[in-house]
Amino acid sequence: MSMVRIEEARLRRYCAAILGGLGVPADQAEVVAISLVEADLRGTASHGVNLVSLYVSRIREGSMKPRTEVRVLADDGTTLQLDGGLGPGQVAGVVAIDEAIDRALRHGVGAVSVREGTHLGALGYYTLRAAERGLFAMAFQNGPTIVPPFGGITPLFSTNPFAYAIPAGEEAPVVFDIATTAIAGNKLILARKRGEAIPEGWAADENGVPTTDPQRASLNGLQWFGGHKGFGIAFLVEILAGVLTNSSYGRTERSASTFGGKARVAKGYLFLTLDVGRFLPLPEFRDRMDQLIRDVRSAETAAGVERIYVPGEIEHERRLENLEAGIPVEEGVIAELEAFGREFGLGSLDKQ
Amino acid sequence: MSMVRIEEARLRRYCAAILGGLGVPADQAEVVAISLVEADLRGTASHGVNLVSLYVSRIREGSMKPRTEVRVLADDGTTLQLDGGLGPGQVAGVVAIDEAIDRALRHGVGAVSVREGTHLGALGYYTLRAAERGLFAMAFQNGPTIVPPFGGITPLFSTNPFAYAIPAGEEAPVVFDIATTAIAGNKLILARKRGEAIPEGWAADENGVPTTDPQRASLNGLQWFGGHKGFGIAFLVEILAGVLTNSSYGRTERSASTFGGKARVAKGYLFLTLDVGRFLPLPEFRDRMDQLIRDVRSAETAAGVERIYVPGEIEHERRLENLEAGIPVEEGVIAELEAFGREFGLGSLDKQ
Repeated sequence: MSMVRIEEARLRRYCAAILGGLGVPADQAEVVAISLVEADLRGTASHGVNLVSLYVSRIREGSMKPRTEVRVLADDGTTLQLDGGLGPGQVAGVVAIDEAIDRALRHGVGAVSVREGTHLGALGYYTLRAAERGLFAMAFQNGPTIVPPFGGITPLFSTNPFAYAIPAGEEAPVVFDIATTAIAGNKLILARKRGEAIPEGWAADENGVPTTDPQRASLNGLQWFGGHKGFGIAFLVEILAGVLTNSSYGRTERSASTFGGKARVAKGYLFLTLDVGRFLPLPEFRDRMDQLIRDVRSAETAAGVERIYVPGEIEHERRLENLEAGIPVEEGVIAELEAFGREFGLGSLDKQ
Repeated sequence: MSMVRIEEARLRRYCAAILGGLGVPADQAEVVAISLVEADLRGTASHGVNLVSLYVSRIREGSMKPRTEVRVLADDGTTLQLDGGLGPGQVAGVVAIDEAIDRALRHGVGAVSVREGTHLGALGYYTLRAAERGLFAMAFQNGPTIVPPFGGITPLFSTNPFAYAIPAGEEAPVVFDIATTAIAGNKLILARKRGEAIPEGWAADENGVPTTDPQRASLNGLQWFGGHKGFGIAFLVEILAGVLTNSSYGRTERSASTFGGKARVAKGYLFLTLDVGRFLPLPEFRDRMDQLIRDVRSAETAAGVERIYVPGEIEHERRLENLEAGIPVEEGVIAELEAFGREFGLGSLDKQ
């Protein structure tokens, strides 16, 4: 599929303007657009501006509110519970991670939960925000019931993403951001849009039969990464992001939203933060992280492997490249964005 | 290999007596023996009394001190840093998790690090201890350089175990306890003792060629679970358990012990605890955990699957069975224990 490179600020403003046209306040639209464009910058198009069409349809169908009101439900110092108000998930997400950063800086450790969130974009975006402040952060998020437990075929879980990030020194922060399924559902949807075959091990069809055909592959047939071990991580995500946050989990719906089960829009999430400076002076910690990263990079490679990466390194290098050369966006996604743009008098994307 | 069932208290006292004979104080020997026997009770013989011979040889070679002095290095309320004094790892481990429990009960969240620890036994033992007090806990531990990074062949990491546990209500607590390699190194060693072939995907030989022969399989050829995603979890463990705790990590040795690299005895570990009662009243949280566990158990099974389990459920059921019927111990392990026992005038194990 053909790609066009678009300058970062242009793409961000265009997406923010579309959201603004739907009634999202300008500052909140900006928060959402930054999250999406950052994902494209890092080469994870599945969590990038490709998602604008999903957000537009959700706002129009009434399953996502254009204006986000984040409410404090309980504040206990190290711990904070928020309600994300069923607006675009990024708005509550940024409030939550910034609070978690503040809690860790004040108390050493912080835990901030959000209920009634919606789609957050790439989870690593939030943990990276903490790492950029010199903190360690983990993020856990659940969602609609599309994936069965290991050994089952009844969908009970989302792709239950998990992310962490941690600062380094001269090296880029380490950012790990995964779906606990072998792939994120978005990647299957993107493969369908592209008409590309999917690798073995990603998904099965509705009857549980493995397939490489993205059209036959079922979003309810995604496989956990690494079998029962990956399921154990996914179950942790369901507990921390769903049960602990007083959100929906498994078959249980706990949301003002009427969209439940596979159509569940409300997500719960939890951010855990830790001030590494309580354990080692931050400059010393950064030096040691650099050393560990370089140990990995300088390891002898296995046959057929060109280079060894630490988590987030590939994405960091892509980001630097895309900031320079423009972000590659698929023509189909550009056409989608421009169709929305025309509704709000935005003109074409490349003329922004 | 032939197994003999031995009553739990008898096995525990015998192991404690062997350690006592080597100069381990009685209360500390009891702590170590409980950890090992609990692993056997739960059916994870790789982390059970099978390890006594390792501990005996380490104490005799001087790489593990018989008497453990746990020292406080820094105490900052939510965070605590300990030095495990290179004694049996369980002694510092129990001090550390009990402190982490205390911190979470007082502050909502706790983080306790240990440097100069040694082999801890099963990591899940410590997180379960927190779950039994109504708390959520995670544990991260690093160790000798036996496993290469994903895509490499230079050993830089241990099997880097990760564990978590969380309370339920009528259901048993959820306990997840894994090596981030496809298997724990102990399981390969046990397969060698048993002369059993290992499954594909566990390990490669010294040249990186996959093998099912436990003698040819290399402890430096263990594979990460789930490929690069499992490596990302292992890397998290290395950072939190090694770098953050001011312990050894990657190629860097930071220990008073002279045993480094593959022979590294000093391990770092971190316990993170969270008081779930700050988020939901504990009885309510327990009810919801029961509901989630039952959702999983009642899911329709995939073809060929008899029953779906949540993490720790199989081990919990085995524990109940073994408490009743006695713990199955291999004759070879019994012979090893009795050989040590004879040195300390203990008589045979089944006569204890």
